[in-house]
Amino acid sequence: MEGKKVVVVGAGPVGSLAALYASSRGAVVEIYELRDDLRNADTTPLNFTKSINLALSKRGIDAIHSTGNTDLLDKILGRTIRMYGRMIHLRSSSGALLQQFQAYDVRGRFQRSVDRGELNKVLLDHLDSLPNVKFFFQHKMTGADFRKKKAWFEVMDKTSTTLSDRPQEIEVSFDFCIGADGAHSATRYHMMKFARMDYYQIYIDCLWCEFTMPPTKEGGYAMPPTYLHIWPAGSFMFIALPNLDNTFVCTLFGPVELFTKLENGTDAELISTFDKYFPGVTTFIPPADLVAQFKRNPHLPLISIKCSPHHFGDSVVIVGDAANAMVPFYGQGMNAGLESVRVLFSKLDQASNRAEALAKYSAERTEDTHVIADLALANYIEMRSSVTSPLYKLRKFIEERLDKYAPSLGWATQYSRVSFSNMRYSEVIRRSKSQKRILTTLLVAATGTGVLGTVAGVWLFWTRLRHQKMFGLPWPSR
Amino acid sequence: MEGKKVVVVGAGPVGSLAALYASSRGAVVEIYELRDDLRNADTTPLNFTKSINLALSKRGIDAIHSTGNTDLLDKILGRTIRMYGRMIHLRSSSGALLQQFQAYDVRGRFQRSVDRGELNKVLLDHLDSLPNVKFFFQHKMTGADFRKKKAWFEVMDKTSTTLSDRPQEIEVSFDFCIGADGAHSATRYHMMKFARMDYYQIYIDCLWCEFTMPPTKEGGYAMPPTYLHIWPAGSFMFIALPNLDNTFVCTLFGPVELFTKLENGTDAELISTFDKYFPGVTTFIPPADLVAQFKRNPHLPLISIKCSPHHFGDSVVIVGDAANAMVPFYGQGMNAGLESVRVLFSKLDQASNRAEALAKYSAERTEDTHVIADLALANYIEMRSSVTSPLYKLRKFIEERLDKYAPSLGWATQYSRVSFSNMRYSEVIRRSKSQKRILTTLLVAATGTGVLGTVAGVWLFWTRLRHQKMFGLPWPSR
Repeated sequence: MEGKKVVVVGAGPVGSLAALYASSRGAVVEIYELRDDLRNADTTPLNFTKSINLALSKRGIDAIHSTGNTDLLDKILGRTIRMYGRMIHLRSSSGALLQQFQAYDVRGRFQRSVDRGELNKVLLDHLDSLPNVKFFFQHKMTGADFRKKKAWFEVMDKTSTTLSDRPQEIEVSFDFCIGADGAHSATRYHMMKFARMDYYQIYIDCLWCEFTMPPTKEGGYAMPPTYLHIWPAGSFMFIALPNLDNTFVCTLFGPVELFTKLENGTDAELISTFDKYFPGVTTFIPPADLVAQFKRNPHLPLISIKCSPHHFGDSVVIVGDAANAMVPFYGQGMNAGLESVRVLFSKLDQASNRAEALAKYSAERTEDTHVIADLALANYIEMRSSVTSPLYKLRKFIEERLDKYAPSLGWATQYSRVSFSNMRYSEVIRRSKSQKRILTTLLVAATGTGVLGTVAGVWLFWTRLRHQKMFGLPWPSR
Repeated sequence: MEGKKVVVVGAGPVGSLAALYASSRGAVVEIYELRDDLRNADTTPLNFTKSINLALSKRGIDAIHSTGNTDLLDKILGRTIRMYGRMIHLRSSSGALLQQFQAYDVRGRFQRSVDRGELNKVLLDHLDSLPNVKFFFQHKMTGADFRKKKAWFEVMDKTSTTLSDRPQEIEVSFDFCIGADGAHSATRYHMMKFARMDYYQIYIDCLWCEFTMPPTKEGGYAMPPTYLHIWPAGSFMFIALPNLDNTFVCTLFGPVELFTKLENGTDAELISTFDKYFPGVTTFIPPADLVAQFKRNPHLPLISIKCSPHHFGDSVVIVGDAANAMVPFYGQGMNAGLESVRVLFSKLDQASNRAEALAKYSAERTEDTHVIADLALANYIEMRSSVTSPLYKLRKFIEERLDKYAPSLGWATQYSRVSFSNMRYSEVIRRSKSQKRILTTLLVAATGTGVLGTVAGVWLFWTRLRHQKMFGLPWPSR
């Protein structure tokens, strides 16, 4: 890649990391970004179609680590907050508030809450210091010829975004183009005119709205910041992730029907819905503020995208949301995107022929990203309801004991393999299926009564325990 | 729609018909087409990404008929050739050529072979005569705001199609926009920025290449023109449809692997492949010509598209390939597109509120077009291989007898309902499933031996018949 011109489309975390990888291989890197530089204080903060709090886990961290720049990684990790598990907020049958802690990992591994903008800024600042990287903000891709290796960009006017103004257009030649321009990727759109791409996008029946939970009067966190807080409510849920400034970024997820009802209802109905299903929230976000935020902040859809291939010839590849947008329920969207960059460059480094490397990358990565997109969809069900079911907890309990006490068996939960390992997503699923088969076989082989009796006993015991509220953990003091 | 501005994007058969429907309702119609007017003799004939021979059947005919213009319909039907069934070309185990006739319909109903360009010209000529219809050829849609009801088009230079030339751009306001701009629809692309559209496209593992079979030395058809000729070869096939000028338009369909092999092989290998699998073809297309055509004509992919919804608000709807491109194996692509126009305007005529009409149309039509897209995919298997299987013929035989001799039961084959009725595609499938259940139940209820013995006997008899070549029909003399 030495001396070659690499065009990266999109200056988000994934595009920025791709630029960093390309620059470290001696490429002349140009980054074209539709929006203004997010570090400009006078521009609107962040596009609201992207969640601004994210869970950074091993795959993302390893992808940053593989740049070899440990200072950069340290700077990023320094801006994260460790979350050791989920804190489930419930109301008991008697009306009392309950919190149940579910550790992410039986070995104590954790997720890291990070502000998307903060992470992005650290990467952009670092790229600014590199002599072979150049930014072109407010440049909108309007066309591309991936045979001739040319792309066209309109230089946007800061005050207008309509096409009728006919802003200036520039032609850019490149040797290699990396499209990291998000779910509505222009790179992908133009690539589809060259590659015979199978493409699938679906909007799930779920909208989301963001809220900010302010610090306490004393300036501290309203709740312990070492958890991802969840208020599961069956077909909808409310979650909260900690920010460095002692606030929480919260999100309401729910079916279109719920949003329509809340949008058309009174303020009192909104508040009473929160009090009924998300106990305690209005203690931390004052009701009037809650109503104002619900009305002010956009109510946005969730898209899931799969496509194949992710490349065309030796001239272009798409990564991140452009190639595989997923719903946010496994906390893997950005992690998968960053990992894609690592895998892409490892293929490019290994092969002498770029077209071959891209074909290999595409074959491997489409399989893996399709798997994680499906897992993310399935996790929506788990988060909003299953987390509270005794059966779910029993399965989690058995699997975690096997993980902890029989490591020589190579047993691990699917969650830990996704979040705390670099194992290919497709391999994670193969192992999970195989473990499930083994567990089932063991149960069947143990000829019924004995085992089943035990299981039934455990279940009954569990349910009773729950009724006795023995799972309502006291909040850790700060 | 009286006096309202309707913009139709795409001047193919479906777009032209939509313009006709809109104009007859008093709208001011503007048709924007990316390509030049196909009636201009100096332009390249027809875009080769569209098949130039099509089967026109009841749904298409009814949609034209519903304009109320019988002259126009007569003119179109006058340019069609009746095809009463499939003529299957085989080679017997002894090497002799066999032709087996399979009627499309037990009641004698037929398909009509029509040249896409001819059909299109008749429609365009008619539109030219209408005072409230205006054409804008070589106008490329570059943007659209379906909230503000504005679209932008670039006026293309005849000699250049690259974006870098920055041709003139015009802004067009409209009251209603109908996108009939094909599988790679720009209308759909821009609509996807407004509607939350679920979208699915897949390229099947099949390429196609067109051939022309010339008339005989005496100037007549090389084969009887009253059939759709098929050479099934398991995983690939060759077909021929008659043209008015005594030629046949033929198509080779096959997996990418076959095309790659033939592209990289010698001329002799190509010819011997044809002689082995498509017996008789090289008698009608001289081998040297066959080789030249295979090298000259493009080898093109096949795409299948499903999406939902097909509209946004009250401002835009997509029809035809733009909404539901399908593989060509049920001969329903254009018929479904034309029918969509009929259904669309019947909903618009019935409702006072256009947004409501479009929502109803979209709900009904997405269901139906998804069904026919699936049927078209399944028919590829039938055409290239099942048509020769004894079991397929037995099923066809029983179903056709029921259709013919028990009409009071409302029994009909799926093929006849798709091709010779206006029944909703989704209803066709429901009836087919129900018929299949009934047949299965009857067979099971007849407690085995008797019926099964009969079936086995029929099958054996059938197989023997086939060996005795009693199905090799003599060609009808002309």
